[in-house]
Amino acid sequence: MEERIAVLIERFKREQGEILILSHEAPDGDSMGSGLALLHFLRKKGKKVHFLSIDGVPYMYNFLPGAEEVITDYSGIADLAVLVDASRVERSGLEKPYPFKEVIRIDHHLVGEDYSEYDILDPGAPSTGNLIYDLLKAWDRYAIDSAIATCLYTAILTDTGSFRYSNATEKAFTDAAELVELGADPAMVSRMVYMRKHLTTYRLLLRVLSSLKLDFDGLVAYITILNRDLEETGASRIEAESFVSYPLSLEGVEIGLKFEEEEGNIWRISFRGKGKVDLSKVALELGGGGHFNASGARIEGGMDEVREKVLGVLKRHMERAGLLQERK
Amino acid sequence: MEERIAVLIERFKREQGEILILSHEAPDGDSMGSGLALLHFLRKKGKKVHFLSIDGVPYMYNFLPGAEEVITDYSGIADLAVLVDASRVERSGLEKPYPFKEVIRIDHHLVGEDYSEYDILDPGAPSTGNLIYDLLKAWDRYAIDSAIATCLYTAILTDTGSFRYSNATEKAFTDAAELVELGADPAMVSRMVYMRKHLTTYRLLLRVLSSLKLDFDGLVAYITILNRDLEETGASRIEAESFVSYPLSLEGVEIGLKFEEEEGNIWRISFRGKGKVDLSKVALELGGGGHFNASGARIEGGMDEVREKVLGVLKRHMERAGLLQERK
Repeated sequence: MEERIAVLIERFKREQGEILILSHEAPDGDSMGSGLALLHFLRKKGKKVHFLSIDGVPYMYNFLPGAEEVITDYSGIADLAVLVDASRVERSGLEKPYPFKEVIRIDHHLVGEDYSEYDILDPGAPSTGNLIYDLLKAWDRYAIDSAIATCLYTAILTDTGSFRYSNATEKAFTDAAELVELGADPAMVSRMVYMRKHLTTYRLLLRVLSSLKLDFDGLVAYITILNRDLEETGASRIEAESFVSYPLSLEGVEIGLKFEEEEGNIWRISFRGKGKVDLSKVALELGGGGHFNASGARIEGGMDEVREKVLGVLKRHMERAGLLQERK
Repeated sequence: MEERIAVLIERFKREQGEILILSHEAPDGDSMGSGLALLHFLRKKGKKVHFLSIDGVPYMYNFLPGAEEVITDYSGIADLAVLVDASRVERSGLEKPYPFKEVIRIDHHLVGEDYSEYDILDPGAPSTGNLIYDLLKAWDRYAIDSAIATCLYTAILTDTGSFRYSNATEKAFTDAAELVELGADPAMVSRMVYMRKHLTTYRLLLRVLSSLKLDFDGLVAYITILNRDLEETGASRIEAESFVSYPLSLEGVEIGLKFEEEEGNIWRISFRGKGKVDLSKVALELGGGGHFNASGARIEGGMDEVREKVLGVLKRHMERAGLLQERK
């Protein structure tokens, strides 16, 4: 990995044209924090850089240094794009023809193969933020200021679920400690990310918790969020982002699901696990992707039909993992 | 601090009699994890040790190695007691005459002065677990096995609120990284502590969220838990332990409160803050104690009377902190 990072640094150094950093759609803290850290650093190195997030900056990340500079569309043709926290350009939400000549990917998800000598794809990294941090350290550690440290710390914090998921490895903690030394303020970041909830969020939570259902002898729990729930509580979609942790956190539950209605008969399904079933494979089979313990997919159809399909695929993977007896 | 630790190690080494570790009442993860880590270590050093927790081991900490050995009363007279995570012996819930000859305190709370040359009291430590870790490392780092690392990691994780509070310092992360290297498994610990919730917890949450009220122009939010709520949902008291984070997490709220009815017209009040008001002083004025951003007190009286008293004291401290204009 060190060698690849050295090669990528040389590539960046050579670039004299426009660089376009790309987050994925519905960006999370890792995509936002990683992308902004890279933006600040490359600018310090005299590069012409933009950060494009087609869905903008979610409310909870609007405190990040540079958040106000994130653009939602780009009119030129950049020489180089850097896709952070996603391995396929389609995940950026951009449509062809793409507004760049070449793309480099920096990502820690399980899917994707290198197709550029400059790609940094490492599913062993706790977050894309850790990969960006390795890159910046290798390039010039003294250029990492407190703004960059704050962005990278936010990436690690949010992608490890406040250091609760299985990607809370020794490296996650070591990097966090270094970033705190470099000026990241964990209490401030947590306050901004997690402690600016709206009353509407709790109104929505009250409805969503009432939708909680258990299946497969209590191994699976799921909640459902309807468009009606959003309309009637006045909550926005992003406020339900972390609600999947409620079904997952029940005793005995191995897999927590969130079924979320979107426009046009589309359902967005979030999968969260406790380590026994590879949910990246479950999601992949349903046209999505993600991590072993956290993945997602979008499916079109009626509510019952979609639920049946998802639970059916999940059942096979649970059987294979030995969680359920195969039944004929 | 290093010198004090060296003196305490010599004191432990000299002790040939019974050592009694004491947690505080209603023990939390720090008290449990710190006490159990010390129990395992001292036994490895050939000491005769017991760990007394008058309220036993709360459900979410029953996975900790050695949890089954925690005793709830002690019939002999120990030569030495070690009070972990509390600075006053009264906090252990024991009544006089105490079942020990001498007491040493290891604690990171803001209250308390040394009254023994062996005391380790350091409000700058993220948790008591970090102080115990310093002690064990200084004594014999090779005796720290994965069971001890798991106990200490649990102490740090829970007392920093999953690294979200202001005590999530560089040391909190550095120690966590070392403990992971020594065998602590963050995902397993988080699963056991946070992901074994009961359905009754969510039933209780539904009621408690409905009790949410805002005061002082939205700077203070509070929830109320009545005995009736516990009876009618079938939830136990411990299940509401973390509910104070709901009022605190609202945007604009600086202080979150939980009023909890106990037997005999006693109210237990939890205070949580975002860094602007010293809540240890608020609690102290009401007969309790704690940290700057997290404290508690018990008050006798009727619901309205207690609420008025608490909000009155809080108001004065908010005024002093410049959060509220002093009004005549």
